[in-house]
Amino acid sequence: MQIIETIAELRARIADWRRENPDGTVGFVPTMGYLHEGHASLIRRSAVENGLTIVSVFVNPLQFGPNEDFERYPRDPGRDRQVSEAAGADLLFMPSVAEMYPRPTATRVMIADLTDRLCGASRPGHFDGVGTVVSKLFHIVMPDKAYFGLKDAQQVAVIERMVEDLNFPVRIVPCETVREPDGLALSSRNVYLNAEERRQAVVLYETLKMAEEKFFEPGMTPGELKAAMHAHLKRAPLAETDYAEVLTWPHLESPADIPFVQMPPGSRFIAALAVKFGRTRLIDNRLLATGPAPAGKE
Amino acid sequence: MQIIETIAELRARIADWRRENPDGTVGFVPTMGYLHEGHASLIRRSAVENGLTIVSVFVNPLQFGPNEDFERYPRDPGRDRQVSEAAGADLLFMPSVAEMYPRPTATRVMIADLTDRLCGASRPGHFDGVGTVVSKLFHIVMPDKAYFGLKDAQQVAVIERMVEDLNFPVRIVPCETVREPDGLALSSRNVYLNAEERRQAVVLYETLKMAEEKFFEPGMTPGELKAAMHAHLKRAPLAETDYAEVLTWPHLESPADIPFVQMPPGSRFIAALAVKFGRTRLIDNRLLATGPAPAGKE
Repeated sequence: MQIIETIAELRARIADWRRENPDGTVGFVPTMGYLHEGHASLIRRSAVENGLTIVSVFVNPLQFGPNEDFERYPRDPGRDRQVSEAAGADLLFMPSVAEMYPRPTATRVMIADLTDRLCGASRPGHFDGVGTVVSKLFHIVMPDKAYFGLKDAQQVAVIERMVEDLNFPVRIVPCETVREPDGLALSSRNVYLNAEERRQAVVLYETLKMAEEKFFEPGMTPGELKAAMHAHLKRAPLAETDYAEVLTWPHLESPADIPFVQMPPGSRFIAALAVKFGRTRLIDNRLLATGPAPAGKE
Repeated sequence: MQIIETIAELRARIADWRRENPDGTVGFVPTMGYLHEGHASLIRRSAVENGLTIVSVFVNPLQFGPNEDFERYPRDPGRDRQVSEAAGADLLFMPSVAEMYPRPTATRVMIADLTDRLCGASRPGHFDGVGTVVSKLFHIVMPDKAYFGLKDAQQVAVIERMVEDLNFPVRIVPCETVREPDGLALSSRNVYLNAEERRQAVVLYETLKMAEEKFFEPGMTPGELKAAMHAHLKRAPLAETDYAEVLTWPHLESPADIPFVQMPPGSRFIAALAVKFGRTRLIDNRLLATGPAPAGKE
């Protein structure tokens, strides 16, 4: 695996590879580093599906708000190298902020509609920063496929919409969330949790599991489900709920508050949570679909 | 020359060509149609510099304001075909609005700083529409080079900034404005002018020629030059000045109002005009640079 720090060198390596492999495909896994098994699963999938797999590690200042954790976001380049290589990455792109933003960007890629709710409401400007940096990275790498974890489900929805709206020549591949044995979704931010917070953090997973069961109860409506999620999160005394929502998927709209069983079969929803433990904000979600129970899972 | 109406077919033709010409380059001339000799000069240059030249004709609704001339913007697909083919285009892409915008776009590419002055001030949202459609077209065509006329100098500055900020893998090639024998810059909108307006429209060119001469006068400042341009435009009784500006190039900032001769050699400026004749809005500009007189021309 080669480690690359400049855009010019990365483009040269990819161009070389494309020249030698005219029928090969390039897979891309953009990350903010501090890689865990969730990232590794994306890299492994890309390595299976493509001839060349590129991982980027870049903590993008543009997607952090002024009071967010850009400075203290966890970083570990040594481990990022190990995880990427072990998972099968061919090129690891680790640019500096100055390489990615040699001057403040005047250009922003802004995605409306999907971005004013859930994490977009709690983090104004966040998804414009995501859209902008993902556009930059796509233009640098020009991948055939790009892999994103469904833990950040709203991010997947936003990027898929951006790719569709702007005709990016790339296929977005959403991948399953990877979890700890007790169900906690893997996240670079889990490292912030103290022992008691870590114990209580399983409440996100348990709330979503509960929501999935209740989803299939006769007469259950989106409003009732949302209320049940809020109530369930209260079981963890250290948890401060940022949001607990039930929205349509992938449009992220508020559904009519009629029983799920009265909606057309195959109607899709996302049950989504953001919960703070102290200064640490965790998110998780579950995709749900009406219809025969076996189709209820994502 | 092949005429293509769908994105999928255009991509397939370009992919075929790239496969057969792995070392060839693709040139792209995006237009709103009603092609004139100015467009033809862009197409000819692309045909000289590239193995495959693609022309797009698309009147982009997103870059027109609600009270602007989207509906009555002149269209002549038959002539567009003739001009494109005669100038050496290989593929002519003529998508419908439904093909380019199958649903309203939630995503916009917004370029700040450069877009709140000149035509951006007169046409709010215009450059967001330009940035968005050019991003779409670039993603569809993925050209090596894209050709733009300098008559729309602000558009060139905005697109160059967008390409730099977002790392688009394309080189922007700005091309000289083509003019009528009397100096009027070619424009699809010239067709709107009646005979008397057409006679007086030469005032834009004459004002810019005057500005270039005055630019080299000792002691001349940006403010005085701007005032002289405003005064000169008054010679045409039918002309209603929208703006007459002297700004830095390519940053489009207001320069300090000190004599040009006191500025560093090689300082670049744009003298830019927008003038209305009845409902018809014409623009023109001249790039200027301090230093030895022979370097004063663009």
